[in-house]
Amino acid sequence: MRPEELKQLFTSVRNGEIGIDDAVKKLKEFSFTDLGHSKIDNHRELRTGYPEVIFCSGKTVDQVRDIVQHMLTGNQNILATRATEKMYTAVKKICDEAKFHALARIISIKRTQQKLTQTTIAVVTAGTSDIPVAEEAAVTAEFFGNRVSRVFDVGVAGIHRLYNKLPEIRNARVIVVVAGMEGALPSIVGGLVDKPVIAVPTSVGYGASFNGLSALLGMLTSCASGVSVVNIDNGFGAGYMAGMINKL
Amino acid sequence: MRPEELKQLFTSVRNGEIGIDDAVKKLKEFSFTDLGHSKIDNHRELRTGYPEVIFCSGKTVDQVRDIVQHMLTGNQNILATRATEKMYTAVKKICDEAKFHALARIISIKRTQQKLTQTTIAVVTAGTSDIPVAEEAAVTAEFFGNRVSRVFDVGVAGIHRLYNKLPEIRNARVIVVVAGMEGALPSIVGGLVDKPVIAVPTSVGYGASFNGLSALLGMLTSCASGVSVVNIDNGFGAGYMAGMINKL
Amino acid sequence: MRPEELKQLFTSVRNGEIGIDDAVKKLKEFSFTDLGHSKIDNHRELRTGYPEVIFCSGKTVDQVRDIVQHMLTGNQNILATRATEKMYTAVKKICDEAKFHALARIISIKRTQQKLTQTTIAVVTAGTSDIPVAEEAAVTAEFFGNRVSRVFDVGVAGIHRLYNKLPEIRNARVIVVVAGMEGALPSIVGGLVDKPVIAVPTSVGYGASFNGLSALLGMLTSCASGVSVVNIDNGFGAGYMAGMINKL
Amino acid sequence: MRPEELKQLFTSVRNGEIGIDDAVKKLKEFSFTDLGHSKIDNHRELRTGYPEVIFCSGKTVDQVRDIVQHMLTGNQNILATRATEKMYTAVKKICDEAKFHALARIISIKRTQQKLTQTTIAVVTAGTSDIPVAEEAAVTAEFFGNRVSRVFDVGVAGIHRLYNKLPEIRNARVIVVVAGMEGALPSIVGGLVDKPVIAVPTSVGYGASFNGLSALLGMLTSCASGVSVVNIDNGFGAGYMAGMINKL
Amino acid sequence: MRPEELKQLFTSVRNGEIGIDDAVKKLKEFSFTDLGHSKIDNHRELRTGYPEVIFCSGKTVDQVRDIVQHMLTGNQNILATRATEKMYTAVKKICDEAKFHALARIISIKRTQQKLTQTTIAVVTAGTSDIPVAEEAAVTAEFFGNRVSRVFDVGVAGIHRLYNKLPEIRNARVIVVVAGMEGALPSIVGGLVDKPVIAVPTSVGYGASFNGLSALLGMLTSCASGVSVVNIDNGFGAGYMAGMINKL
Amino acid sequence: MRPEELKQLFTSVRNGEIGIDDAVKKLKEFSFTDLGHSKIDNHRELRTGYPEVIFCSGKTVDQVRDIVQHMLTGNQNILATRATEKMYTAVKKICDEAKFHALARIISIKRTQQKLTQTTIAVVTAGTSDIPVAEEAAVTAEFFGNRVSRVFDVGVAGIHRLYNKLPEIRNARVIVVVAGMEGALPSIVGGLVDKPVIAVPTSVGYGASFNGLSALLGMLTSCASGVSVVNIDNGFGAGYMAGMINKL
Amino acid sequence: MRPEELKQLFTSVRNGEIGIDDAVKKLKEFSFTDLGHSKIDNHRELRTGYPEVIFCSGKTVDQVRDIVQHMLTGNQNILATRATEKMYTAVKKICDEAKFHALARIISIKRTQQKLTQTTIAVVTAGTSDIPVAEEAAVTAEFFGNRVSRVFDVGVAGIHRLYNKLPEIRNARVIVVVAGMEGALPSIVGGLVDKPVIAVPTSVGYGASFNGLSALLGMLTSCASGVSVVNIDNGFGAGYMAGMINKL
Amino acid sequence: MRPEELKQLFTSVRNGEIGIDDAVKKLKEFSFTDLGHSKIDNHRELRTGYPEVIFCSGKTVDQVRDIVQHMLTGNQNILATRATEKMYTAVKKICDEAKFHALARIISIKRTQQKLTQTTIAVVTAGTSDIPVAEEAAVTAEFFGNRVSRVFDVGVAGIHRLYNKLPEIRNARVIVVVAGMEGALPSIVGGLVDKPVIAVPTSVGYGASFNGLSALLGMLTSCASGVSVVNIDNGFGAGYMAGMINKL
Repeated sequence: MRPEELKQLFTSVRNGEIGIDDAVKKLKEFSFTDLGHSKIDNHRELRTGYPEVIFCSGKTVDQVRDIVQHMLTGNQNILATRATEKMYTAVKKICDEAKFHALARIISIKRTQQKLTQTTIAVVTAGTSDIPVAEEAAVTAEFFGNRVSRVFDVGVAGIHRLYNKLPEIRNARVIVVVAGMEGALPSIVGGLVDKPVIAVPTSVGYGASFNGLSALLGMLTSCASGVSVVNIDNGFGAGYMAGMINKL
Repeated sequence: MRPEELKQLFTSVRNGEIGIDDAVKKLKEFSFTDLGHSKIDNHRELRTGYPEVIFCSGKTVDQVRDIVQHMLTGNQNILATRATEKMYTAVKKICDEAKFHALARIISIKRTQQKLTQTTIAVVTAGTSDIPVAEEAAVTAEFFGNRVSRVFDVGVAGIHRLYNKLPEIRNARVIVVVAGMEGALPSIVGGLVDKPVIAVPTSVGYGASFNGLSALLGMLTSCASGVSVVNIDNGFGAGYMAGMINKL
Repeated sequence: MRPEELKQLFTSVRNGEIGIDDAVKKLKEFSFTDLGHSKIDNHRELRTGYPEVIFCSGKTVDQVRDIVQHMLTGNQNILATRATEKMYTAVKKICDEAKFHALARIISIKRTQQKLTQTTIAVVTAGTSDIPVAEEAAVTAEFFGNRVSRVFDVGVAGIHRLYNKLPEIRNARVIVVVAGMEGALPSIVGGLVDKPVIAVPTSVGYGASFNGLSALLGMLTSCASGVSVVNIDNGFGAGYMAGMINKL
Repeated sequence: MRPEELKQLFTSVRNGEIGIDDAVKKLKEFSFTDLGHSKIDNHRELRTGYPEVIFCSGKTVDQVRDIVQHMLTGNQNILATRATEKMYTAVKKICDEAKFHALARIISIKRTQQKLTQTTIAVVTAGTSDIPVAEEAAVTAEFFGNRVSRVFDVGVAGIHRLYNKLPEIRNARVIVVVAGMEGALPSIVGGLVDKPVIAVPTSVGYGASFNGLSALLGMLTSCASGVSVVNIDNGFGAGYMAGMINKL
Repeated sequence: MRPEELKQLFTSVRNGEIGIDDAVKKLKEFSFTDLGHSKIDNHRELRTGYPEVIFCSGKTVDQVRDIVQHMLTGNQNILATRATEKMYTAVKKICDEAKFHALARIISIKRTQQKLTQTTIAVVTAGTSDIPVAEEAAVTAEFFGNRVSRVFDVGVAGIHRLYNKLPEIRNARVIVVVAGMEGALPSIVGGLVDKPVIAVPTSVGYGASFNGLSALLGMLTSCASGVSVVNIDNGFGAGYMAGMINKL
Repeated sequence: MRPEELKQLFTSVRNGEIGIDDAVKKLKEFSFTDLGHSKIDNHRELRTGYPEVIFCSGKTVDQVRDIVQHMLTGNQNILATRATEKMYTAVKKICDEAKFHALARIISIKRTQQKLTQTTIAVVTAGTSDIPVAEEAAVTAEFFGNRVSRVFDVGVAGIHRLYNKLPEIRNARVIVVVAGMEGALPSIVGGLVDKPVIAVPTSVGYGASFNGLSALLGMLTSCASGVSVVNIDNGFGAGYMAGMINKL
Repeated sequence: MRPEELKQLFTSVRNGEIGIDDAVKKLKEFSFTDLGHSKIDNHRELRTGYPEVIFCSGKTVDQVRDIVQHMLTGNQNILATRATEKMYTAVKKICDEAKFHALARIISIKRTQQKLTQTTIAVVTAGTSDIPVAEEAAVTAEFFGNRVSRVFDVGVAGIHRLYNKLPEIRNARVIVVVAGMEGALPSIVGGLVDKPVIAVPTSVGYGASFNGLSALLGMLTSCASGVSVVNIDNGFGAGYMAGMINKL
Repeated sequence: MRPEELKQLFTSVRNGEIGIDDAVKKLKEFSFTDLGHSKIDNHRELRTGYPEVIFCSGKTVDQVRDIVQHMLTGNQNILATRATEKMYTAVKKICDEAKFHALARIISIKRTQQKLTQTTIAVVTAGTSDIPVAEEAAVTAEFFGNRVSRVFDVGVAGIHRLYNKLPEIRNARVIVVVAGMEGALPSIVGGLVDKPVIAVPTSVGYGASFNGLSALLGMLTSCASGVSVVNIDNGFGAGYMAGMINKL
């Protein structure tokens, strides 16, 4: 609550336009709903411009369905990441508009239609195996109303494939680059474009890739400027960040 | 070189407006200057919108001076990070406009004045010891023409200090958050604002902070959305990325 | 055995009130029962104020049942952590009072009723996925006679949920804070209360959370004072420690 | 600010006992003083029961002196940890009561005398080299008014030395155990006492001790209950936590 | 082949007692048998005093059976570690004397009876879950003709159990100590006995035990002298080493 | 595209031998085929002398079959590594010449027969469990037309087995050495031969081998010269590199 | 104190041969001397057969001198490891018999002459740089009365040097093998001898040797049997352990 | 000693052409010279085609001089790596032909002139700071008679610099690529050439580069084929390996 709002509230209180108990309650309202196991953050959209997203991993099917159920009482759009087929089935039963993006492991429920951005986010992968993480990024960005351009399998072992797609990539306002193994692609892209690059290391690889550690370290120590990094396999985080930048 | 430019070049060749050897040479021009130990990337500004920056660490004083000397032949602004006092003295001798930002360890040479952005980048630190890294970010962003707002020492141990500064932080278009030890501040800020957050882990701390590893991991696994991370102590990278986003 | 007891024993020996063999035996009695695979520490309650607890992980169903069987010959309360459904079934057969706390993976057998403490332990979690570890802490603390207050899903991404619950948390005498991912919650809570905080990192998360390492390091390097840490997912240890402090 | 206080403030506003601007200001007062490089947390004592402590590491001598200078304007006691000789000299100049605990690297300024607790904190070390960390714990605890009992060099290689000191250790209300290398002492002590144990791993050791990592992991995985752990070499944290528990 | 043997061989050659081709072949004989996938080291007993042992992990059932089959053509005793039930069944079919030590995961075939040593090896565990590794050590030592004394579940959380068993432990000529979690037991034992201690870290534990790393580091940095360490869960290595020392 | 080719292209353009659009297109041709999920690098053989290899891990059966299907339209040989039985079945259906090397997990399709090299690559393993990785190396090298000599199970615990095979190993032009656990074999071989050694660490081992880390570090720090290392379990990479050297 | 001794003590008490206070005191005598900063373990020789050794690292010059001073009041031999030149100078002043082994960083004081063992300990190094650690092992073993045979610089890169020295090595009763970098030598030696091998990893190396980690992991995962390992650079521990075994 | 040589030796013995003691001695001759601290491997050139190289790190100035002194008695060329200025001064005194390559930290003594290879080794660096390691590689390769082509500062942030130099790089027979930070350059180069690439990670970088670990992991997990890796900063190893391949 910003100072001006606070001042306004105090003024209303003095003017008797609002009772004291109501004032106290008002400070709590818009806040959250308590489901026992979860506290749904209703305030989130006001605070950050984005509604709360359900991170399904570690939650039971029942918990996910309960949270969706409550959120449906509002009129908001709903995004659930790291969802399983079973969770989708449970959600589908209570909301027919629910859609499952299997590759991206995302359940989305769109109730109010957004206008798409004019500008584009490019989602680029080094290899074919990085596509599920890239899809999580792309579907997330699209959910929040961004236009997305997918450029897959242009890794550094055959870098002419990247060059061929450069015009498309350069056309974007923000670029998400998804890569496993040595994670070199964001460095290359970062050196060729004048747009911010969000790098997503993936756990693709074996041996010394140590479940994404090699890609993560490579991206963090990138010698290219204009590159920042999210967690290993965190397609959602990259898509969200890219969308936030794209909509500035 | 974009397809249209290529097409243009071919047309000129066919029209005899340009000789073959010149065409080949043209493809290389704007490219780089070879100083032996270093190849200065003249092409960079064209490609990424930003001139090459000198990363002084691991270079000798002579190498830094040579590179600056060459870059002075153009009319560009020059930024040299991780510079020492000695490097500054050597550079100052060949260019009187050189300025040393001691805390940020940056040498800057501004020859053409930029208009400042209307929008602001907030550079926030958790503690007093994080200031040098924050200054590297702030000076970098300012060098590229961004307005910067500094908010220092508002870490989570006394979080009301952060709340007090929230209006100032929320007023920014992008937020750089610099923190060592457990690196929790970006998560908090990320949960309170509707702007992209660039998190910079610092090597501030001891014991299990393992030279910034704890802060790095904490920021990467942040439960807040809209947070991406750069290398430990990489104030430059954060300031550059923030500036790039701010100017979109 | 304390010096005075030793002196007493010697005096009894000299006075002939106790035979030599009996004296030697006395030094061993109260000690332990040897089941071959396990040596049950009967002495433990005398020494530490708490009876031995059965850590079921790595034990066979038969071993757990044997240990319970022996302990039932005394009149003590029995707590078995990291228990499986199968272990519970086996224990239930030999003791009808056995109760299974499925979420907490705990078998408890209460034979003597304790008076509950007046003061409370707050068990707080950052997310919904941290609840199983939190329940292990809560059930453990309750088993040893502590009043417990559960506050779940108040992590830093929506920190107003925490503020709303602060009075309840501040009302406690000791606070257990359970969090995965970046593990920032104990730092926040530690900066807001005047009570000792026991932090429990969980293995909730993925990628750079490295099975709880990120949360562990974050909690160890917390910039808040009055925070100490137990092993990853060690709800039992936190509940035990909190109970010990609460009962001082 | 608790709900009742808030209610009280609103009532005063309605009754005209306090002006609106004053009400808004009141919400900020008691908050912090901004020195530019640092924001001193005046609110801290109210919130956590303890005044802010200056962590000198990473601060300049001037910054430390400035912070002390400001804090002297109140009437509080001042504690500065990880202080150097030079910092002490600078502080001594502006405050004659300043005292330097060289081994503990602590500057303390005591202006109001506290009554010592009846109960004692035992600070125990495994070896002679662990003493500096132990002293940091002991001096911190004493600063906050706790009686401290020092038991040094009773590590597990000659465990009878520990047994000899057990009565003294058992007499304490809380026990701080400081150990490097394999860090086994807290496990032993934890198995012998009925009091909470705060374990402090130290960076004492070489090779596979990896700067305290071996002791840290050992303490975290302790098979004894009632043991929690602070950061490597964090004597302050242990002394603070122990004091907090001792004063419950 | 020692120098004297070499000299002897040359003399035989000169004397014509042995042909040149035979001499060359002799240098290779006693060497190994090539099964394609494996080269059985027949020379081993001559060289190290012990026959080759079959490490079954990573081998197929067929490979294990083939190796046993070949070794049966000699008259040696056979030891196969990390064996599965299936391997045992396959081996049993070709050799009725094969015996399976299920807990220790060992197949043994004893064809020539050894005299047992007079002196004893003590195999000690911290907990019940460490028994399988301890049994691997014990069965290995027994296989090579050593008398073994088992002392299980005497870990540091209830250290009086260890004291009670000290006479039995001190009676041994070598001591194998098996422990997981913080791995403190070898330090304690090492400080109480005048015999070499072979420490075996186990992967028993969770969280910060990192699959035995905490126990391994703890044992390597033990402050007790006379302790050396083998690989995590390497009961065989400890039993072998202990037997070698016991038989000196 | 080399400068001379570029010059040639420009000349053709000027001479009107080729149209402008064709010239632009020509720069892209030979490039790659876009299957959506994958971009097949047709250019690769031209650029590196070797056709693209399909790395099946992380790809679906359908994706692998699609890629093979496309590549079959050319007349090239096809190699697919880390393939499963199921992938083989799918590929077999569309190409009868497909062959499955089960141990090596490789599908190969040979349509044009190569002449074998005169010189040999030796593929050496320390143990029996390292054979699958060695086979991946051997089959890869053979696929590219190299003669391979397999020497298995000659690890350092019975080093005379290695000595016996030295003539065969020394006869090779390049040597691939595959070893897990302590990974010492490449050091030994490197000290005995005058040929380059490609070392392949394997994940064979347990405990402190940390999935191949011990072997990897051992090989990287080898005190023998002429040894270089590929990723853990990367038989393909070693076979490829060895073939490349062998064919120089 | 063994049970028989305890029985004896009780009998003496009953018979009035010893007073009660004396009996209590007797249980403490032989125990330790308290110097404040250190508790000298006088009991150690009785318990483990070896007098306490002073580990100088982390102690001040004064502390080392104090401890030596006290120990000189007995008639024992004194060993101080990791000693500096300065410590030696201080000790020399109070005891003229003190001798400094500079390479081994050991101060030794021999007051009673021991008979040397008939059997020998071989101390073997891989390289020249490993000699300081090897000397610490050798001087320690000699201090405790063992005959030592030094075999330096016989690492695996030129393994014929090792073969040449094999008779000397095989002649020993125990073998200490000291190696840095890949640490392969103990595996080789272990496969060639029938004696226990104590492996000492050293921090010799650079890059991926990570201060001895590569050698440590290599030795722990050695495929040779009869090898156990001590801490990185722990020459003392190896010499002590070897001496203990040699004197069995 | 190969079988034929062995046969020859036996024949000579039988024919009385050589005495028995001489035969035994002959097996040892060509072997090594024992300087006490070091055993110089005279046999090395015979065995591996290359004379022994002196690795100066961890050796004293005297030891280096002694080894050089002995090697000078032969007529071989001498190479000493990781040498200091002081070592050079000492060597210069006993051999005027000694030359110091300061950047490469190498002392070389060339007594017999080699013919240079026709083919070239390209030594490529990503940045200016990688030059010292690259020089170690280049000087080593040149010492062994290879022609070397240096291409410095062509890292991926400005990849057109690499493209410009591709003809020169492709012209080489083997390519050494030296890079720190994310170590991506070998992947790029490996995808563009048909020659073996030896990748050298350097410790250039900060933060998450963890002293070269990020570059090392990146290179090991490179998605390009035909790349193998040596230790961090191991320019010598790369130059040696490249030379060995170049001379095949």
